[in-house]
Amino acid sequence: MSDTTEKPAAPARIDFETAPERYRHWRISVNGPIAELILDVDENATLQPGYQLKLNSYDLGVDIELADAVQRLRFEHPGVKVVVLRSGKDRVFCAGANIRMLAGSSHAHKVNFCKFTNETRFAMEDASTGSSQRYLCVIQGTAAGGGYELALACDEIILADDGNSSVSLPELPLLAVLPGTGGLTRVTDKRKVRRDRADVLCTLEEGLKGKRAAEWRVVDQVVPRSRMDAAVTEAATRLAAQSDRPADAQGIELAPLKRTRDGNTVTYSSLRVEIDHPARRATLTVLGPETAPPADTEELQREGADFWPLRLSRELDDALLDLRANERDIGTLIFKSTGDPQRVLAYDAFLEANGTHWLAREIVLQWKRVLKRIDLTSRSLVALVEPGSCFAGTLAEIVLACDRSFMLIGAEKGDNRAPAAMALSSLNFAAYPMSNGLSRLATRFLGEPESIASARDTIGSALDAEACEEAGLVTIAYDTIDYADEVRIFLEERASFSADGLTGLEANLRFAGPETMETKVFGRLTAWQNWIFQRPNAIGPDGALKRYGTGVKADFDPERV
Amino acid sequence: MSDTTEKPAAPARIDFETAPERYRHWRISVNGPIAELILDVDENATLQPGYQLKLNSYDLGVDIELADAVQRLRFEHPGVKVVVLRSGKDRVFCAGANIRMLAGSSHAHKVNFCKFTNETRFAMEDASTGSSQRYLCVIQGTAAGGGYELALACDEIILADDGNSSVSLPELPLLAVLPGTGGLTRVTDKRKVRRDRADVLCTLEEGLKGKRAAEWRVVDQVVPRSRMDAAVTEAATRLAAQSDRPADAQGIELAPLKRTRDGNTVTYSSLRVEIDHPARRATLTVLGPETAPPADTEELQREGADFWPLRLSRELDDALLDLRANERDIGTLIFKSTGDPQRVLAYDAFLEANGTHWLAREIVLQWKRVLKRIDLTSRSLVALVEPGSCFAGTLAEIVLACDRSFMLIGAEKGDNRAPAAMALSSLNFAAYPMSNGLSRLATRFLGEPESIASARDTIGSALDAEACEEAGLVTIAYDTIDYADEVRIFLEERASFSADGLTGLEANLRFAGPETMETKVFGRLTAWQNWIFQRPNAIGPDGALKRYGTGVKADFDPERV
Repeated sequence: MSDTTEKPAAPARIDFETAPERYRHWRISVNGPIAELILDVDENATLQPGYQLKLNSYDLGVDIELADAVQRLRFEHPGVKVVVLRSGKDRVFCAGANIRMLAGSSHAHKVNFCKFTNETRFAMEDASTGSSQRYLCVIQGTAAGGGYELALACDEIILADDGNSSVSLPELPLLAVLPGTGGLTRVTDKRKVRRDRADVLCTLEEGLKGKRAAEWRVVDQVVPRSRMDAAVTEAATRLAAQSDRPADAQGIELAPLKRTRDGNTVTYSSLRVEIDHPARRATLTVLGPETAPPADTEELQREGADFWPLRLSRELDDALLDLRANERDIGTLIFKSTGDPQRVLAYDAFLEANGTHWLAREIVLQWKRVLKRIDLTSRSLVALVEPGSCFAGTLAEIVLACDRSFMLIGAEKGDNRAPAAMALSSLNFAAYPMSNGLSRLATRFLGEPESIASARDTIGSALDAEACEEAGLVTIAYDTIDYADEVRIFLEERASFSADGLTGLEANLRFAGPETMETKVFGRLTAWQNWIFQRPNAIGPDGALKRYGTGVKADFDPERV
Repeated sequence: MSDTTEKPAAPARIDFETAPERYRHWRISVNGPIAELILDVDENATLQPGYQLKLNSYDLGVDIELADAVQRLRFEHPGVKVVVLRSGKDRVFCAGANIRMLAGSSHAHKVNFCKFTNETRFAMEDASTGSSQRYLCVIQGTAAGGGYELALACDEIILADDGNSSVSLPELPLLAVLPGTGGLTRVTDKRKVRRDRADVLCTLEEGLKGKRAAEWRVVDQVVPRSRMDAAVTEAATRLAAQSDRPADAQGIELAPLKRTRDGNTVTYSSLRVEIDHPARRATLTVLGPETAPPADTEELQREGADFWPLRLSRELDDALLDLRANERDIGTLIFKSTGDPQRVLAYDAFLEANGTHWLAREIVLQWKRVLKRIDLTSRSLVALVEPGSCFAGTLAEIVLACDRSFMLIGAEKGDNRAPAAMALSSLNFAAYPMSNGLSRLATRFLGEPESIASARDTIGSALDAEACEEAGLVTIAYDTIDYADEVRIFLEERASFSADGLTGLEANLRFAGPETMETKVFGRLTAWQNWIFQRPNAIGPDGALKRYGTGVKADFDPERV
């Protein structure tokens, strides 16, 4: 394999944390219940050298800002009921992922980039379905490829009827790759475009405009520029009327993360990440709450981003993104925890009791997304449930998200911490659906639904290692004689397997049961795109990505497989 | 890309037709309602040179026989209610796909091989669910990889408890690839094995045996060899009691296909295939029935394999398999038809009126499978609906299965055939679900269910081109001025696109709506496997497939993507 793009020089560490005052590409403007989210890409502010972000095209840096904006609109602006997503440039909405960036990226970067952009698109949809903050997309100018896919993640799309504005998915004809940021799936399954029309759309470089775009349901409305303002106001008002977001609540500020990096250790306020490069694994130790939950939602508002569940969720999310993008040789993530399980349950009880409060709801939804991020992380996931740990309620979801879990029976001599115990809360049964739409317990017990009922009977009870094994909550429990050796053997064996084989295995085993748009995007669509990202027709020296813009047509191998 | 396995010398043409008297690897033995289907591989009777089929391992040739046996058990043995699938060798059940064969195969052959074996496994399940011919698998000896996946396609699995017999999925640890013949999907979704246990199973070279195999639901029963005969008899009797297959019906013989090949033309009795290599397309012209349907089921029985719908379905199936395996540069399949649409509808009416007759039922189920084979063919599919054609009822499904369809309005001067018309029958609405579980019409009209009702109102009526376009049954209708040019431009454009890009595009656009085990296997599982089949960890010079059996461990790139 002589593809020289496979192993470029190690790029700078990608930081997923940002804040509006540092945005280079997006602007947020809030006006009562309506916010505008404006894409106005600074073509020189690229994440890596070697390309320019012309025509509002994007790289991972642009998408990191978008993900941040989507988060802040939810937490900092509870009164915003509708987000109008539009371009800050007059003739172009968005040209999609930057092609030179893609052509110059390693396979791993391409795959990671697509995963993150997909997660961000689903976060927009989650804002709509989860906390009724609707997205309205206004397209004036061209929306090509990832540009149209960004629009597809919105609730409604209004396209200007001006002879210029259009939507297109030109990936296949131009680049020999797929519209991989959910485009194919959302066209067929969200907008339910007839399959032969979807085929036309995906092979038509220039895309669709005007009346036909609305007739084919690729957009919701087509309006002349002269009526655009009125149409946007009408749609925004209508969408706002469907929202239950509070008119008079005060947002909380998503303050910067408390994060320090020292060699191979990253320390957050409630999470510690230790990276072991020779063994190719990282240990993420979650620290339970140090104090009791607040007395009421006023105190919750005052704690804001310091509220332990929110703080931990943001730290865990940042750690996962950091490991995915920056530590690609780390094949296994080990989850541990330390703290008081009863106190974790007290936080769950607080969140549940205040489930109708906008902020409590946002925090539960945030955990849902972070837990999905764990599910979708293509590393082997293992939980070690040991004395002094606090895998209870929401934190038990981390154990249930793992490929394997080991639990220690009793304690080593001289260890005076409490023996390992797990406990469930009612949040484990419905609050955190996986991307297949089922809870982790329901997915786990697909073949034995009676085990779900049994698990429900244990809510609030501390279950020791043998009880957890019996209830099927952990893979296996070992006593002190065997535990350390068994864990060591497992970790060493895991590191000996093919990284790619494990990625494919885990992508198949983690999502039993029903499929949704999300599982289709991350399973079917992503897997085919990854395959295409390996094929010479796309990435070879004569392939479409390499030849794009050279004036020389790609030279394709016509063989079908 | 210097992988020398990519373009081996053109192999001999693979023939998918066979018959029991020519089997080298399987034996069928019928005893009243119970048949035995015995795998006893002749290790020297390989499809291609370069390997031996040791330990009851298989190549495509073994699977072609299996597919034939599954078909004949349905048509030739209506009285068989249970098929006991077992090994003819004492110490081994089946070692799965032959590894040397895989290691020496091109990417395209591997992908095609996996697709066909998957279709055959689903054909076994279709025999069970569609015509209640149950499969009971008896494992004495080792069932490894594809061997266990073969068992997973059966309704029940009985494993001998003898210290030797085991089931395993060692693909990942041994070969760095996936259990790709449905193994991962059936473990989690059919047998609903808990995900962490599935992870254990898929990483354990030696697999599971004895009590634990039953406790984890990877098999249904574990019995000592001394009680094996009794257990098989008990299970077979119990399964037979659930079957509605007729005790006293006479089977029909699946006579050899009428097929002649002359250069680039293959002529069957009711189908003509013309291959145009320079243009990289093949035209399949279906010939409608020449006579009226039989008067009753007795006459149907007498016609047997000559009955037009059955004859055509077998010919079409053979043509598709031939094109897939042997004509890989053919990127587009063009479907045409010629005949009397009303006569096609008369056959549909006959099949529907006699839906409870075992043979009529088998024929409808056979069409269901052949139509799925079209859906799953990774070539661009286009229907040309022209004067004199007969895309009515069952044949209209072919148009609905295509990525695009073009219909001619009126007729060219001097053409005195009837202008193109389509017509639906009630079979279009439920008899032929796609692998997503929906009819092609329901999939097509996912976004406009009212169009299904409108279509139902037209049953039996001939719809001209403009009516078909209006009803959404074809992509577009052109008059004689534009038709030929538009079709030509489309075909030329299609041939200019990347073959791989089209494969990925079509795999995503064809299956809107719900997902099933079938779509999971052909979408998610297959796409990941294809990706892995491109990765150096599996197929590179230091990868696991190449190093297998050399005594030298594979050298893996640890990077996760």
